[in-house]
Amino acid sequence: MADVTLEQARNIVAAALSKGRDLGLKPLTVVVLDSGGHMRAVEREDGAAPGRIEIAGGKAYGAVMLGMGGRAQMERAEAQAYFIAAANGALGGRMVPVPGGVLVKDGERVIGAVGISGDASDQDEAAALAGIEAAGLAAQP
Amino acid sequence: MADVTLEQARNIVAAALSKGRDLGLKPLTVVVLDSGGHMRAVEREDGAAPGRIEIAGGKAYGAVMLGMGGRAQMERAEAQAYFIAAANGALGGRMVPVPGGVLVKDGERVIGAVGISGDASDQDEAAALAGIEAAGLAAQP
Amino acid sequence: MADVTLEQARNIVAAALSKGRDLGLKPLTVVVLDSGGHMRAVEREDGAAPGRIEIAGGKAYGAVMLGMGGRAQMERAEAQAYFIAAANGALGGRMVPVPGGVLVKDGERVIGAVGISGDASDQDEAAALAGIEAAGLAAQP
Amino acid sequence: MADVTLEQARNIVAAALSKGRDLGLKPLTVVVLDSGGHMRAVEREDGAAPGRIEIAGGKAYGAVMLGMGGRAQMERAEAQAYFIAAANGALGGRMVPVPGGVLVKDGERVIGAVGISGDASDQDEAAALAGIEAAGLAAQP
Repeated sequence: MADVTLEQARNIVAAALSKGRDLGLKPLTVVVLDSGGHMRAVEREDGAAPGRIEIAGGKAYGAVMLGMGGRAQMERAEAQAYFIAAANGALGGRMVPVPGGVLVKDGERVIGAVGISGDASDQDEAAALAGIEAAGLAAQP
Repeated sequence: MADVTLEQARNIVAAALSKGRDLGLKPLTVVVLDSGGHMRAVEREDGAAPGRIEIAGGKAYGAVMLGMGGRAQMERAEAQAYFIAAANGALGGRMVPVPGGVLVKDGERVIGAVGISGDASDQDEAAALAGIEAAGLAAQP
Repeated sequence: MADVTLEQARNIVAAALSKGRDLGLKPLTVVVLDSGGHMRAVEREDGAAPGRIEIAGGKAYGAVMLGMGGRAQMERAEAQAYFIAAANGALGGRMVPVPGGVLVKDGERVIGAVGISGDASDQDEAAALAGIEAAGLAAQP
Repeated sequence: MADVTLEQARNIVAAALSKGRDLGLKPLTVVVLDSGGHMRAVEREDGAAPGRIEIAGGKAYGAVMLGMGGRAQMERAEAQAYFIAAANGALGGRMVPVPGGVLVKDGERVIGAVGISGDASDQDEAAALAGIEAAGLAAQP
């Protein structure tokens, strides 16, 4: 399997938003990218600010482009800030290296990434993990 | 009603893709934007090339930014090519002024736009019109 | 006098919009720039599409940057398309070289420019001319 | 109500500038954006430097795109600098995350944002709050 399918992406989005409602989170925006960093499915809940598309997308984009989830990127940034800053510059400033960007894996293979924005980063990540799990796939935060 | 809701956007996407399958079209990408040009819902079918996101998005973006559907933009471009070319430049080159970008209206008010790419422009537009109609909203191609 | 004042710019905007209503034009967007191409006053009427800001602004920007109104730019483009295309490229693609961009002059001196978008280019220009005249200034279309 | 109307935007601008004069502030620039981040009304006072358009606009743009006023953005930046820096990058560097960018709300709904620049950030914000209050709308700094 090369890439997250639309069916899988839809399941991730639906389960992530459902998790957000269960946890009483603020309105969420969910972006699912394929292994090339291109959108497969996106939904922005009513009341979510418009720029949340770029933030959720940036979390997922950085994950798939670096092969490293947002939490791992944040840890790397704490250890070596200039690397993440320079990587982001090289990628056109599109990365948002914080929790809520999660790699989607089929076994060991990266098949895409999910980015969520709207609540605190840890909550965004919890919704992403729930979405990926519900789709029967492996997550790497 | 201010803007297309997520529920409406989902209905548009589902009905447009269903129309595409009924017509035997190539894999489609559907982008639904709100009245400010920001994504509300996106789906890209399996087999659709990644740049279809930017093309479908550009059709919808031009529609909402100019208040003019893609077919109307194409007609304007045939009458006055330099206006559409310059408008596109002023909007950062993000417009794709061909059929398949359709305004979504609630009565007389623009509440968003749909852009579809993947098959011939006329077919893309037919899927967009079907999606908007199924959501109980008015379409302006 | 170096530049259009805020008071003059307000008068231009008010009179241009009033002219638009008298003529029954579609909702207009009016951008008044100073002699450096920077905004002095802007108003976008209810119902005017959001991208009209960039189009009206691009008409005024090209006028002030080239020292040539939009109608003169269009005539130049018809005689020598590559010059206007190249000039627009050199200016970052921000020009919209059609009627509706009008230089504002105090005697022989350019003190700013007005750009209007929303109706046909000739109508946009008529509103701009009315606005500049009402402010007691000279117009160069 | 979907978006700040032109009438409301004009009232905000007029009252904000009036407040600035009452407080003896430096020349101000006021930008009012709709809920999609697009200009509704702008005025730059005589003596205000030209780049104040981009600064005032960036305060308002960040507010509406993140659904968070400039003061809240500044507090978030103090707690988690890299998030605001990365969000700004993802939004094309157009944000100016300091006080003086204020959300405009109709009840709980964001209908736009005001950005002011020219004096100290706290003074800019005071003028924005006065403008929004005078227009009978709710402000979130």
